[in-house]
Amino acid sequence: MSPAELHADSIVIDGLIIAKWNRELFEDMRKGGLTAANCTVSVWEGFQATVNNIASSQKLIRENSDLVMPVRTTADIRKAKEVGKTGILFGFQNAHAFEDQIGYVEVFKQLGVGIVQMCYNTQNLVGTGCYERDGGLSGFGREIVAEMNRVGVMCDLSHVGSKTSEEVILESKKPVCYSHCLPSGLKEHPRNKSDAELKFIADHGGFVGVTMFAPFLAKGIDSTIDDYAEAIEYTMNIVGEDSIGIGTDFTQGHGQDFFEYLTHDKGYARRLTNFGKIINPLGIRTVGEFPNLTETLLKRGHSERVVRKIMGENWVSVLKDVWGE
Amino acid sequence: MSPAELHADSIVIDGLIIAKWNRELFEDMRKGGLTAANCTVSVWEGFQATVNNIASSQKLIRENSDLVMPVRTTADIRKAKEVGKTGILFGFQNAHAFEDQIGYVEVFKQLGVGIVQMCYNTQNLVGTGCYERDGGLSGFGREIVAEMNRVGVMCDLSHVGSKTSEEVILESKKPVCYSHCLPSGLKEHPRNKSDAELKFIADHGGFVGVTMFAPFLAKGIDSTIDDYAEAIEYTMNIVGEDSIGIGTDFTQGHGQDFFEYLTHDKGYARRLTNFGKIINPLGIRTVGEFPNLTETLLKRGHSERVVRKIMGENWVSVLKDVWGE
Repeated sequence: MSPAELHADSIVIDGLIIAKWNRELFEDMRKGGLTAANCTVSVWEGFQATVNNIASSQKLIRENSDLVMPVRTTADIRKAKEVGKTGILFGFQNAHAFEDQIGYVEVFKQLGVGIVQMCYNTQNLVGTGCYERDGGLSGFGREIVAEMNRVGVMCDLSHVGSKTSEEVILESKKPVCYSHCLPSGLKEHPRNKSDAELKFIADHGGFVGVTMFAPFLAKGIDSTIDDYAEAIEYTMNIVGEDSIGIGTDFTQGHGQDFFEYLTHDKGYARRLTNFGKIINPLGIRTVGEFPNLTETLLKRGHSERVVRKIMGENWVSVLKDVWGE
Repeated sequence: MSPAELHADSIVIDGLIIAKWNRELFEDMRKGGLTAANCTVSVWEGFQATVNNIASSQKLIRENSDLVMPVRTTADIRKAKEVGKTGILFGFQNAHAFEDQIGYVEVFKQLGVGIVQMCYNTQNLVGTGCYERDGGLSGFGREIVAEMNRVGVMCDLSHVGSKTSEEVILESKKPVCYSHCLPSGLKEHPRNKSDAELKFIADHGGFVGVTMFAPFLAKGIDSTIDDYAEAIEYTMNIVGEDSIGIGTDFTQGHGQDFFEYLTHDKGYARRLTNFGKIINPLGIRTVGEFPNLTETLLKRGHSERVVRKIMGENWVSVLKDVWGE
């Protein structure tokens, strides 16, 4: 099978996209051969604003049903592959939208939310993010984890602090993930995960999606798709070939305003970090270039079997464990 | 001056009442000679529910303007004394109602809120309460403290965890308070404050209101007004005669449902504590019995000057420092 044929035949999952949702992006997803993606519909928003985001995203999906379809189960993902559309899975990057209501977990599950990051960069009612001192998982947070387990929503820990992450990993009865992270073994950064943290989540049945967000890569905006592949390999050496996947963190279509929103607490309060210029690695600058990743991994000597796992089969397997369907 | 005359002549401030707001209570406040009280209008409620509480409280005050009047400044408190009404000051027992909006601090100040407890029993966006592990003041919490300082809203730490309390005391540029607490020197309890904590707040220009809530007193529901006076004296020995006042925590008019609400996280989630039966100390079971406290303090040998300070002058002085008017 040629690299292009393998890519076209594979289930390709992106564990994290926070792009501007529009037809242009959906066209690029088809070009990239994406089977499904965890698409962020909440970062700093509260309950109602998040419901509004979901409602407008659902309308957009309806209007572009030649390209995309909603997915809530792994059967839906396989269906999307079969019919040649990209499955859109709703995800949060912050449990903030649950506000103080445990019951909102199931409400959002019913609206199509299948994965929720417990904290985004700072403290919320559940725990603390990776950009401030981390006091760990709160009592309410433990109740939220239990409810996410019950309802079938995956706990994501990418932007979560080290202590809260460790406690969620221990608390959860279902696999949890870093949906989009890089190893601090290649570059020290508050957002990157140490070898010990990567080993810890894998040892507890968890999952790691590897991102290519330039500020967290050693070569920054001068990185290439080979640097991304190297980070995937570094991570796979720690977590093993069954617990690894992709989580690009594509921000395609967004301008500086959006990064200002992301990098301030609550979207407007104190500045938490400053990414500077963001350019994705050469070779995978856009979602449409996804096939290059399959080709690069093959070129670097990985077997078709392993490449299929990395590109999506592993994600489907762990999502099945969490969702139960 | 007889005890009754002194009481009638004094400014009498209750630093914390969370009673059922109705005419019957307002009549009892007049009977008790109360000049003003910090009246709780938010515990677990979010922004809008708290605004609703304030709106209905304002209506109730209007409808009972022969007995009560709103107070926003210490001049208003002196005015209430002059005209023989009880001044109603709105307070929160939880900064949760600020939600994620720093701008809500000033919104609520304009609605008459002059004192806000940073956390109620558990973790919120600001810090952590006294019934769970306390990771300290969050970055957002520091921004909220700065805004409360700027706008003139007093930080209350009664139900706040030890670490968050210490950090608010250090962070605030205006005096902060435990509006209603008891010394753990007399009874160990998660809600009570150690000698070191009482000394720390006083050493940093802060203030302590002493409560008489039975579950936190050594003799529980068998306590008398003399046990309450003993707790006041114990605290005054540590913080000094200028930094002490009253904060009863009267819950008059509420039934078991209300205590269930208070003792569960968010008002409905996991149980945090169980107070059991609540009976206020003999001699001060109701707001109307407030004059007995003046009499008891005099009987125990305190001078008129000191009794006036404890009963309310100290509160007025510290509120003036915080509010600036």
